[in-house]
Amino acid sequence: MIRPTEDQQYYELTSPTALPKASGFLWNEKMMIHMNCRGYAVAQFMQPEPAKYSHAPNLEAKTFMQPEQPYYAHHPGRFLFIKDEESGYIFSAPYEPTRQLPDKYVFAAGKHDIVWTIEHWNLRIEMRLTLPRTDTAELWSIKVKNTGGRKRKISIYPYFSVGYMSWMNQSGEYVPGLGAIVCSSVTPYQKVQDYPKIRDLKDKTYLLAEKKPDAWEVSQEAFEGEGGIMRPSALENGMLSCGDARYEMPAAVMQYRIQPEAGEELEYRFVFGPAKDEAEIEDVRDRYFGWEQESASPSIEDGFAEAARDYADYVAEGRGCLTIHTPDKDLDNFVNQWLPRQMYYHGVTNRLSTDPQTRNYLQDHMGMSYIDPRSTRNAFLTALSQQRPDGSMPDGIVLYEGAELKYINQVPHTDHCVWLPVCLSTYLDETNDYDLLNEEVPYAGGEKTGTVFEHIDLAVKWLIGDRDDRGLNYINQGDWCDPMNMVGYKGRGVSGWLTIATAYSAIVWANICEHSGRTEEAEDYRQQAEEINGAVNRHLWDGDWYARGITDDGVPFGISADEEGRIFINPQGWSLLSGAADAGKQSKLIRAVAEQLESPYGVEKLAPSYTAMREDVGRVTQKHPGSAENGAVYNHAAAFYIYALYAVGEKENAYRLLRKMLPGKDEADIRQRGQLPVFIPNYYRGAYRQFPRTAGRSSHLFNTGTVPWVYRCLIDGLFGVQGTPDGLRIAPQLPAEWNEASAVRTFRGAEFRIRIKREEGVSATEVYVGGNGEQIEGGIVRNVQAGETYEVTVKLPL
Amino acid sequence: MIRPTEDQQYYELTSPTALPKASGFLWNEKMMIHMNCRGYAVAQFMQPEPAKYSHAPNLEAKTFMQPEQPYYAHHPGRFLFIKDEESGYIFSAPYEPTRQLPDKYVFAAGKHDIVWTIEHWNLRIEMRLTLPRTDTAELWSIKVKNTGGRKRKISIYPYFSVGYMSWMNQSGEYVPGLGAIVCSSVTPYQKVQDYPKIRDLKDKTYLLAEKKPDAWEVSQEAFEGEGGIMRPSALENGMLSCGDARYEMPAAVMQYRIQPEAGEELEYRFVFGPAKDEAEIEDVRDRYFGWEQESASPSIEDGFAEAARDYADYVAEGRGCLTIHTPDKDLDNFVNQWLPRQMYYHGVTNRLSTDPQTRNYLQDHMGMSYIDPRSTRNAFLTALSQQRPDGSMPDGIVLYEGAELKYINQVPHTDHCVWLPVCLSTYLDETNDYDLLNEEVPYAGGEKTGTVFEHIDLAVKWLIGDRDDRGLNYINQGDWCDPMNMVGYKGRGVSGWLTIATAYSAIVWANICEHSGRTEEAEDYRQQAEEINGAVNRHLWDGDWYARGITDDGVPFGISADEEGRIFINPQGWSLLSGAADAGKQSKLIRAVAEQLESPYGVEKLAPSYTAMREDVGRVTQKHPGSAENGAVYNHAAAFYIYALYAVGEKENAYRLLRKMLPGKDEADIRQRGQLPVFIPNYYRGAYRQFPRTAGRSSHLFNTGTVPWVYRCLIDGLFGVQGTPDGLRIAPQLPAEWNEASAVRTFRGAEFRIRIKREEGVSATEVYVGGNGEQIEGGIVRNVQAGETYEVTVKLPL
Repeated sequence: MIRPTEDQQYYELTSPTALPKASGFLWNEKMMIHMNCRGYAVAQFMQPEPAKYSHAPNLEAKTFMQPEQPYYAHHPGRFLFIKDEESGYIFSAPYEPTRQLPDKYVFAAGKHDIVWTIEHWNLRIEMRLTLPRTDTAELWSIKVKNTGGRKRKISIYPYFSVGYMSWMNQSGEYVPGLGAIVCSSVTPYQKVQDYPKIRDLKDKTYLLAEKKPDAWEVSQEAFEGEGGIMRPSALENGMLSCGDARYEMPAAVMQYRIQPEAGEELEYRFVFGPAKDEAEIEDVRDRYFGWEQESASPSIEDGFAEAARDYADYVAEGRGCLTIHTPDKDLDNFVNQWLPRQMYYHGVTNRLSTDPQTRNYLQDHMGMSYIDPRSTRNAFLTALSQQRPDGSMPDGIVLYEGAELKYINQVPHTDHCVWLPVCLSTYLDETNDYDLLNEEVPYAGGEKTGTVFEHIDLAVKWLIGDRDDRGLNYINQGDWCDPMNMVGYKGRGVSGWLTIATAYSAIVWANICEHSGRTEEAEDYRQQAEEINGAVNRHLWDGDWYARGITDDGVPFGISADEEGRIFINPQGWSLLSGAADAGKQSKLIRAVAEQLESPYGVEKLAPSYTAMREDVGRVTQKHPGSAENGAVYNHAAAFYIYALYAVGEKENAYRLLRKMLPGKDEADIRQRGQLPVFIPNYYRGAYRQFPRTAGRSSHLFNTGTVPWVYRCLIDGLFGVQGTPDGLRIAPQLPAEWNEASAVRTFRGAEFRIRIKREEGVSATEVYVGGNGEQIEGGIVRNVQAGETYEVTVKLPL
Repeated sequence: MIRPTEDQQYYELTSPTALPKASGFLWNEKMMIHMNCRGYAVAQFMQPEPAKYSHAPNLEAKTFMQPEQPYYAHHPGRFLFIKDEESGYIFSAPYEPTRQLPDKYVFAAGKHDIVWTIEHWNLRIEMRLTLPRTDTAELWSIKVKNTGGRKRKISIYPYFSVGYMSWMNQSGEYVPGLGAIVCSSVTPYQKVQDYPKIRDLKDKTYLLAEKKPDAWEVSQEAFEGEGGIMRPSALENGMLSCGDARYEMPAAVMQYRIQPEAGEELEYRFVFGPAKDEAEIEDVRDRYFGWEQESASPSIEDGFAEAARDYADYVAEGRGCLTIHTPDKDLDNFVNQWLPRQMYYHGVTNRLSTDPQTRNYLQDHMGMSYIDPRSTRNAFLTALSQQRPDGSMPDGIVLYEGAELKYINQVPHTDHCVWLPVCLSTYLDETNDYDLLNEEVPYAGGEKTGTVFEHIDLAVKWLIGDRDDRGLNYINQGDWCDPMNMVGYKGRGVSGWLTIATAYSAIVWANICEHSGRTEEAEDYRQQAEEINGAVNRHLWDGDWYARGITDDGVPFGISADEEGRIFINPQGWSLLSGAADAGKQSKLIRAVAEQLESPYGVEKLAPSYTAMREDVGRVTQKHPGSAENGAVYNHAAAFYIYALYAVGEKENAYRLLRKMLPGKDEADIRQRGQLPVFIPNYYRGAYRQFPRTAGRSSHLFNTGTVPWVYRCLIDGLFGVQGTPDGLRIAPQLPAEWNEASAVRTFRGAEFRIRIKREEGVSATEVYVGGNGEQIEGGIVRNVQAGETYEVTVKLPL
């Protein structure tokens, strides 16, 4: 069997039972594919708007990525049917659609590939998917090994869903000259002015085979017959009919009739993806298979293998700046392998959107500070160039000429300015690039320009100014990750969280100003923050926690008197950072969160989940209880709460909640959450106290602002290796259960090898640097030299 | 077995082979359901925009009705699983999803119900669907009879697809107090201003049972398990788990465990549909089942059966004004039973659209002239009240306050004015209601008003005025049923068909003017028509037929020099009516149509079908060859051609093409077209000479302007019983192969019993009326008295 390595997460079926919903994902700058362990796939590519080349069997809505994606018999997938030509026995790999349990089954989600290994009927099937670095294409290798003691006669049938391409024009056929099944369509349009938008789309879907198939089928219906997708009738015949599809739903199915000797392994390779025309497919064929039309054999130059290696290199470029070794091996693996990969995915793809939400864009690139700070710098300049001259930020950042603000970006939210200083501070911590603040950047419209300093001054002042007589921030139709669209749409309702966030962002900005020598401004921002914190405590403290807001009609909500939506996580965590909560309030609210919001899968966004519409709060109360923002374990919010706990030294609480966020490797956790630990989803289903059966289920969405905050929890909190203008501050906050840990931290070109252990006789954290173990004051390693290696020892009290 | 009656069309499976795609449809004013004979369903209801209560398993696009609907394993359906509790054998009725061929299978599509009768495993299953007159609900009766010789132990499981209701909120559970499975959802929205649009939607889907089930399941996934939809795992257990669905995809499944004695028949009845809240479901329960919550038994008052009877009455109200008896029994059945039903469907539902296309709206209500002329009158006044003050018509007629022009109605077409006089003439023929022309009607905007005369004068003048220097009509982005959006979008391209149609509509309007005593205007319109016909012959005659148009850049198309799109049907037929084509041209173009456009399934719209984009013609050339407007047998256009053939006395040609349009009852025709003769689809797949394998396939769309024109072919042509200002003109054009025929024609309140036969010695049509057989001059029965019966004898030459 395959030997899983530490950069793979695998699921091995150990009992004859249904498969969980484990999945893996791969991406490059142009595309993304999410593979479910059963063989179902969701793939999108950018041209420049998101598009599909493997479709559902009906006319799908164009929409943003949906959580908890339902699968069904004809969901797009990548399958291999296998038929024993002697007995007629048919099964499929990896599992769908025939659903026989194999003798052995391993699903390995890797960093740069996804691999299944199946043993059944004395055959071993290995299916491996990887991507190229830049092309929009899936690279599939399928190996079939005869593990029995005698020669076999079998047919294998790679099956790639094409689906309902278009009601306007769709067809498919095998093109012998290409060695490919080519399915063609025309994207429907009706207005002549929309024609240029569809004219150059990649409307073809092809399955290109390295080895010429013995037969094929392109009509889904002809392939299935009355047997259906679970037992296609065409497999009952000796050979597929070599038919085509004419305005019929296409599928790409090939047949290879083979007779492997005992022990013999055969490999078949395919490229599957979209194309504009046949010339493009021909180019792909030549580059990957070096395929000469005459010889129909693979050339010596193996473009396919080279592309796979190149893609592995590409993914490897997305490593983080922290490698840890702790008593918690699953944490190590997640932090060292998967967390930076997920951050990198966000940073290079912008979630495969042409108009990422402003807060997402800024946070995703905050994460890139740890991987590729130049891209963070550019992202800041891009975002600021779309800031309005009054200081407010648009709801989305447009990345392509002609892209439009879509979906939720058409709804006015009031929090976007918060993220400018908050995210920028991470970039500055990491790079010390205070020069950025003096860059001149235009505002939206292009008439006015200003330095980054001026831009962010305006943003923070806009936030401070957008408050009511009580000193509380207006919410309008929403703020961070809350579709609370009816709290304040009449122009009076306020947000508790946003008011606290305004105070916090003023403090963060004050610190940046101070480091830049703008002492007076810094002092002014600090005073403003203090004044805002005062308003927060006057109007929003409910006795044991902070209210979420006050509606247009003056009704506070997220308070103890509420039956549903009694407590929200966001105001609590941020109040720890803004300084609003004094020690007494801190301990009260931390206890309230533990008692009311903590679940086995993490901290819920709010509780109890709303089960009925509350018109003065709005849309969030119409969301399914426990889903998305209505009481889910919304990891983005949870990560910020953990970050805040570290900020106030609540390290035991913080570590416990951090671990709940990471999906586990044990069977029970994989089954309940339905996912392997290869990413943190945007949410786990919450409402644990109301609907325990479904609580903990993963959304399966790996687009989430969670990951850079988890990274900051590690950098600024758990391992305490945060940058400062002077150098690297070392101040770990290990949980009590760890007696030692070590980490390698790359920082401003230097490498820090840090060993941390608890020792008797140590009363406070002691930091020693260098071969001779010199203790350093304040824990800050100053004057960091790029290229140097620093050996650091940290001693902690027992 | 069921005895099919003449108001049912049935398909009986006679050999062990796959089922065809036969289907039936039912509707009321609020909803429509299209049932495929396998058990798959497409249902829509209006609230007021089209909505669904039985969804696909993924997020479907909101779109107009699609042709050639693909079916797949999880397509929404209405199934009954049956399990023999002794042997464990499982099958499903009517066929899907388990797909065992039953011993007997009859699918009967009726006028007011759809019935399956299945015999299998010594059980007879009858499934019957009907609708209420006004509620949005499906009324299902399911009978199970033990046809064997001993008592049986079985479970039956009615299964109704609910599907993926909403990503925002979806759930389902059995509500014991209602005796119903109730699935709830919230229609997603994001902008606060959209909230009022979704607030009162019927977001619940319920399955209400007359008899309380023994068990149920609501989670699709829990029901299917690893067995899948084709063999659900839950059926392996003794009882369903009585589970619920929480943000999981719901299905409504009930279980009844029963033990019928030999010969015993049990009946189960259900209501399936959408509701706003549980109170609405309770109301349905009380009305249909008289269900007392305490007794859980059906009451004596049978609201369900009454609703079914009431619905049959409703459908019966849609009878036409012509009953025929000819040697062609299939024609008789179609014309007497199905054709008026399809016209009635259009007239009362407006195709379940809130903004029907103007030309469709006018033609659909033209058809209503034969059924309910008052509704036609109102429709004209509605349409004219949306005419612009310059005489032009909008692309769609808005039927509800707040409805918007959608889809193709956002694309400017130039032909809508044509249909005003053309459709009005039918209404006047039928009713003689020339008073309508003096009604005062506002124009769009409401500032200006005018009589119907003035409105239509303006419309015809707008058409006459919208021509270029050559005298040819501009096409802009399209005209009738042609997405020729790039012929004239620059403002110069012209339409051959539309120019001819302008001439024809001027002639029709001239006739109406003349009958109204506006002799001078009539003369003027006739001169205009002559002048236009002259321009047509100067610029568009290609030698054997008329060109379809001339592009913005002066390129004529639809001409003999073209490789594709060489000949179009529309200019040919209309030139017969407008008088453009003299006798020589007539015979040339009729021959060209026969040679190039006629196929075994009717006349194609154009040939050869375009196989590649032609940018100067546009979108039609991107449509799939043989589909919709690109070379399909587009029945709307074909019907008009047949109508024109009758107008010039080409009765043999006309009858032959008419018969090709009607789907046949023989197995081969049902299999190739995929439909029973219960409706004329908007098209059969064309491109017969290019892609014969798929030619003839039905679009399965019964929304089509074809039907009133077929009716006019019968009234004005084949049977020649057209109204005139003076009375009923009787001038049959029977095909030579018929020696006799008879018809009952209701007309202006009178009944005409007409017997037609060929007799030796007759040299021209002779019409005799009354008991004493008085021959009448010109074939016109004058002074028609409502309430009278007229016996008419027509003698034709041999």
